[in-house]
Amino acid sequence: MRATVLHATRDIRLDDVDDPQLIEDGDAVVRVVAACICGSDLWPYRGLPEIDGPRRIGHEFVGIVEATGSAVQTVEPGDFVIAPFAFSDNTCALCQRGVHTSCVNGGYWGSEDRNGHFADGGQGELVRVPVADGTLVATPGQPDEALIPHLLTLSDVYPTGHHAAVSAGVTSGSTVAVVGDGAVGLSAVLAAKRLGAARVVAMSRHEDRQRIAREFGADEVVAERGKEGAARVREIYDGLGADQVLECVGTADSMKQAMLSTRPGGRVGYVGVPHGVQLNVPAMFGRNIGLAGGVAPARAYIEELLPGVLDGTVTPGLVFDQTSPLDKVADGYRAMDERTSIKTMLAL
Amino acid sequence: MRATVLHATRDIRLDDVDDPQLIEDGDAVVRVVAACICGSDLWPYRGLPEIDGPRRIGHEFVGIVEATGSAVQTVEPGDFVIAPFAFSDNTCALCQRGVHTSCVNGGYWGSEDRNGHFADGGQGELVRVPVADGTLVATPGQPDEALIPHLLTLSDVYPTGHHAAVSAGVTSGSTVAVVGDGAVGLSAVLAAKRLGAARVVAMSRHEDRQRIAREFGADEVVAERGKEGAARVREIYDGLGADQVLECVGTADSMKQAMLSTRPGGRVGYVGVPHGVQLNVPAMFGRNIGLAGGVAPARAYIEELLPGVLDGTVTPGLVFDQTSPLDKVADGYRAMDERTSIKTMLAL
Repeated sequence: MRATVLHATRDIRLDDVDDPQLIEDGDAVVRVVAACICGSDLWPYRGLPEIDGPRRIGHEFVGIVEATGSAVQTVEPGDFVIAPFAFSDNTCALCQRGVHTSCVNGGYWGSEDRNGHFADGGQGELVRVPVADGTLVATPGQPDEALIPHLLTLSDVYPTGHHAAVSAGVTSGSTVAVVGDGAVGLSAVLAAKRLGAARVVAMSRHEDRQRIAREFGADEVVAERGKEGAARVREIYDGLGADQVLECVGTADSMKQAMLSTRPGGRVGYVGVPHGVQLNVPAMFGRNIGLAGGVAPARAYIEELLPGVLDGTVTPGLVFDQTSPLDKVADGYRAMDERTSIKTMLAL
Repeated sequence: MRATVLHATRDIRLDDVDDPQLIEDGDAVVRVVAACICGSDLWPYRGLPEIDGPRRIGHEFVGIVEATGSAVQTVEPGDFVIAPFAFSDNTCALCQRGVHTSCVNGGYWGSEDRNGHFADGGQGELVRVPVADGTLVATPGQPDEALIPHLLTLSDVYPTGHHAAVSAGVTSGSTVAVVGDGAVGLSAVLAAKRLGAARVVAMSRHEDRQRIAREFGADEVVAERGKEGAARVREIYDGLGADQVLECVGTADSMKQAMLSTRPGGRVGYVGVPHGVQLNVPAMFGRNIGLAGGVAPARAYIEELLPGVLDGTVTPGLVFDQTSPLDKVADGYRAMDERTSIKTMLAL
């Protein structure tokens, strides 16, 4: 089969690799229908850190089950399935507590499962799925093609934005600000509105992203960044700041901006993978500002978020502003690296 | 009147000072019936940081209203009142959101009110109370003398322990660990059980404190500290760690111990004033461990916690293992400094 392989910094190719096979009784093999490129894929692509050899990549995909091991019960060949960005058994004590990314039998695409067997990356034609019963969520019947981008967001960005909102405690009537206008930040706007937020401020300087934020329900857009941006958010919220601020970037600056945008007693929900983030603990303590979030347990949320996607109540797939065929995957990476694309879908 | 004055490191005296007077229409003057010494009073007592001149001290007291300004409506002379450790109007936007310690018209005992007038410290015979309507909570009638220590804990330690538990999200069925066996840590044990925690582990090496923890409902006591202590907590909780860990100390070591005792997806509630605390953000992110808490808005919780104190359901005053008359206040500080007393009450 063909699969995306990162060979070195900014050297990404579609290579011929061995077809995956069922290894364990609980495995499935899925033929990928659509995949996509994540902002977090850009870190190794940019050489941060530099990789030491060719490496399979990709962790967001939807597809059709092609084969299942003898123990698999919840999906069968022919099912259309959504794969969250981490695999998990959905039964262990931590999955039961909704922390599927800490599953004792879980792991990440493009690396090893609990028994040391390779689990394929998501940007290829086929993927071996460990603990398939726990990992995959089948849709009722085959979805229309138009739904596929929206379903694909359930792999990662939509539940990740939702995780920021849930972790921060967004609820009916909340006042919210979102730091970050990437696909996750935009999804966080959508998620916060879905959870009943009274007012959501999206922080974005880019017109195309501002437009999507508005379509996702943002009530206000703040173009300023840093201290100025936070001051604008506080001004919008009666001089206090937002009840909940969703930090969807992961840099030291974005976290500072989030903290300064939060009212005393409020919470920051963070899902941006932290790079060099330091927290001012005495300031957080003095103002009673909490912080919660982390690697989103996407699997925990799919059943909750799927119905609204299926019935068109929400259209999270608007974050895909570009689609490439798999054999143009390198162009997709280039577009996202140069920020000419918010998020690129790979159609197979 | 006589009031406690810190003159220099470990030089604390009961001095004659001017009687407080009503200044603003919203003021009350309260004759103190009982006060106490707080762990946080020990920082300036120990010269951390060294003070630059005599300073009034104390922030926990109950007493009888002696006089009220013309605008005061909720209390009247003769009422027995509880004063939380910060004054607040109980009406501003932040008080309405339960963050009374960020009240826009609030402040702290022994320093200035919003108009620059001195508000007395709590360890004296009389205290001028700014924004008295918002600050003071009157008991229904005059309490029995035996209730006074329990009522006095509503000034600070009991609602502070409660704040740790609420911030961490302790609820019915929670598994909890408490780091810190001072009066606040012990109160946190009581608060967690009151909120329905299924199991509470108190971390303490001292027999007298372990005994109070047990009386407050601790199901287990762990004497080990640091990594060993956290490993014991994880072992008790099925190898995972506690759902909520209440950090009631404020040092770098105690925070590390708290984080290591928390299960993936769990929360640390912290009320120990942070001294040199640094957070390992990538580790928190990877394990989805949240952090919330801060300077406890004691006032926000008094109405909720008072009934159980009045009817004897809880006996939070057990944290007072020593009582001094006010003129022996220096002995009380010495006992707490040398850790021969958990918490010393000052009877007037």
